[in-house]
Amino acid sequence: MNKQIKLAHRPVGLPEKSTWNFEENPIPAIQEGEILVRIDYVSLDPAMRGWLNDTRSYIPPVQIGEVMRAGSVGEVIESKHEHFKEGDFVYGTGGVQQYIATDGKGWVKVDPELAPLPMYLGTLGMPGFTAYFGLLDVGKPKEGDTVLVSGAAGAVGSIVGQIAKIKGCKVVGIAGGKEKCQYLVDKLGYDAAIDYKEENVREGIKQHCPKGIDVYFDNVGGEILDLALARLAMGARVVICGAISQYNNTTAIKGPSNYLSLLVNRATMQGFVVFDYSKRYGEAAKEMAQWIQAGKLYSKEHVESGIENFHDTFLKLFSGEKKGKLVLKVSE
Amino acid sequence: MNKQIKLAHRPVGLPEKSTWNFEENPIPAIQEGEILVRIDYVSLDPAMRGWLNDTRSYIPPVQIGEVMRAGSVGEVIESKHEHFKEGDFVYGTGGVQQYIATDGKGWVKVDPELAPLPMYLGTLGMPGFTAYFGLLDVGKPKEGDTVLVSGAAGAVGSIVGQIAKIKGCKVVGIAGGKEKCQYLVDKLGYDAAIDYKEENVREGIKQHCPKGIDVYFDNVGGEILDLALARLAMGARVVICGAISQYNNTTAIKGPSNYLSLLVNRATMQGFVVFDYSKRYGEAAKEMAQWIQAGKLYSKEHVESGIENFHDTFLKLFSGEKKGKLVLKVSE
Repeated sequence: MNKQIKLAHRPVGLPEKSTWNFEENPIPAIQEGEILVRIDYVSLDPAMRGWLNDTRSYIPPVQIGEVMRAGSVGEVIESKHEHFKEGDFVYGTGGVQQYIATDGKGWVKVDPELAPLPMYLGTLGMPGFTAYFGLLDVGKPKEGDTVLVSGAAGAVGSIVGQIAKIKGCKVVGIAGGKEKCQYLVDKLGYDAAIDYKEENVREGIKQHCPKGIDVYFDNVGGEILDLALARLAMGARVVICGAISQYNNTTAIKGPSNYLSLLVNRATMQGFVVFDYSKRYGEAAKEMAQWIQAGKLYSKEHVESGIENFHDTFLKLFSGEKKGKLVLKVSE
Repeated sequence: MNKQIKLAHRPVGLPEKSTWNFEENPIPAIQEGEILVRIDYVSLDPAMRGWLNDTRSYIPPVQIGEVMRAGSVGEVIESKHEHFKEGDFVYGTGGVQQYIATDGKGWVKVDPELAPLPMYLGTLGMPGFTAYFGLLDVGKPKEGDTVLVSGAAGAVGSIVGQIAKIKGCKVVGIAGGKEKCQYLVDKLGYDAAIDYKEENVREGIKQHCPKGIDVYFDNVGGEILDLALARLAMGARVVICGAISQYNNTTAIKGPSNYLSLLVNRATMQGFVVFDYSKRYGEAAKEMAQWIQAGKLYSKEHVESGIENFHDTFLKLFSGEKKGKLVLKVSE
């Protein structure tokens, strides 16, 4: 049987258990030109919260009754497709379920010998590519720049900070909790970390970014975005990657009151979507794999188990109870 | 005697009569290397409101007791300076007063035969350069783009829209009142105008920008910035020139709630300050003068008279009771 998580209704605020339907359906049969994939791991990302809203965005929302969309890695267990054979490991948007029949469009092979499968959902997958292109192409850091990262211990943020260090920047991270902040400095090589739960973030930024912020990589939005805007250096680049603090809002999103700092400091605030860089994923994966092998880039996956635990695991994205890339193992 | 307007105290919200001191002092004597300028016209600009606040910005605030800073044009009536002679007409930051003694730094000669003096405070001065570089260098319009301009009948906005038309764009303006909107379309050649006082701006943008907004040139901030963000086209550029709706706020500035549209639409929001382009003012003045001569660019100055009327005239910037560039004649 194929265990699946489907969208039962659109949540208001934080999703609840009743947001999802848990179903067991027969494993689909494949047609000529298709493959059957047994999904081993699914990716849990803050962006998934946005896909639940019935609003115009960069991709259509998940429809009620559909399997929840998610990135996934797994093994081809049956193939009637010329490019994939049984035993191939593949990455694609398989959704939160155990099996999928697909024509292979949008699926790519991955090598489990080169890196553990969950890493293809993290550093060598979307979050890694998001960090790589968002920082390097949008943020354009120069050696000696001060780079501030929010959500700094998360799947994207933890890679952003490390790449910025590789590029010779001073890197300051904002994260929640003493342990995460210590992890940023001790394990990821951040120059400093600010604990937004315990510290005054305004003072922290002032202290650790005395020359102002050249690149601010924003994963959180809200109050922290405003505090960062208030300390921009001349010609700063603000990279809008996400706004996790606002995703479960039941009221209007908080806009950045300090946006006129863009004018005063001749600064740029730019949004991006990683999908636009799909032709260059190979380039990013290759360079990041080299950094990992050279010990310059530490990849951290937080793996939970059991498709039944999808809801509770998903909430960990927003409660801050995890470090690095959140992944759910859905098949035994 | 030299009539002067000095800053008496920092206003909260809209300036009041008591914000200013009116003084008469002796006409200053000049030293070797200086000139004495009789100021004929001073420029009144929304940015002046920002200079009254004691906050870090792109230039220092005007200090209590200082002559109010303002751009000005006038005549050299006495010279001990090798580059200026009696009878030269000059532009500089002379302040709201009738006479100034200066070493000439930051002052340039202007030709009253080529254009009337007030035009050097408008289309051939800061507002014109602001429009020129803000639109062309920051907004980067391409032929066929849809360009939306707020404060469209103002000193900057009215030039922005006309340059965008010259560059082959579809141009939509937002202004307050039927008469201004008619002026945008009939006199300045805008393709459409939205009257924010009478019309639903959201619907107006939807109707007149059916393919979305490629360049939004923002002079006003607030609600209108949010409505524009909601209708950006893919890869749009938002030029932050000013935020006149927020300058007299007594509460926090309203940040743009829809800023995540930058992410969805891979768009850029960028601030700029015209002073950064000072080396290229000549280039802009030359091209705009050609456009004026060719009848492609209409320059409109609203001239009021009498330095005693400074306060009442200044308020017209915010009440919307004027079209084009607001200028005050301060000498007889």
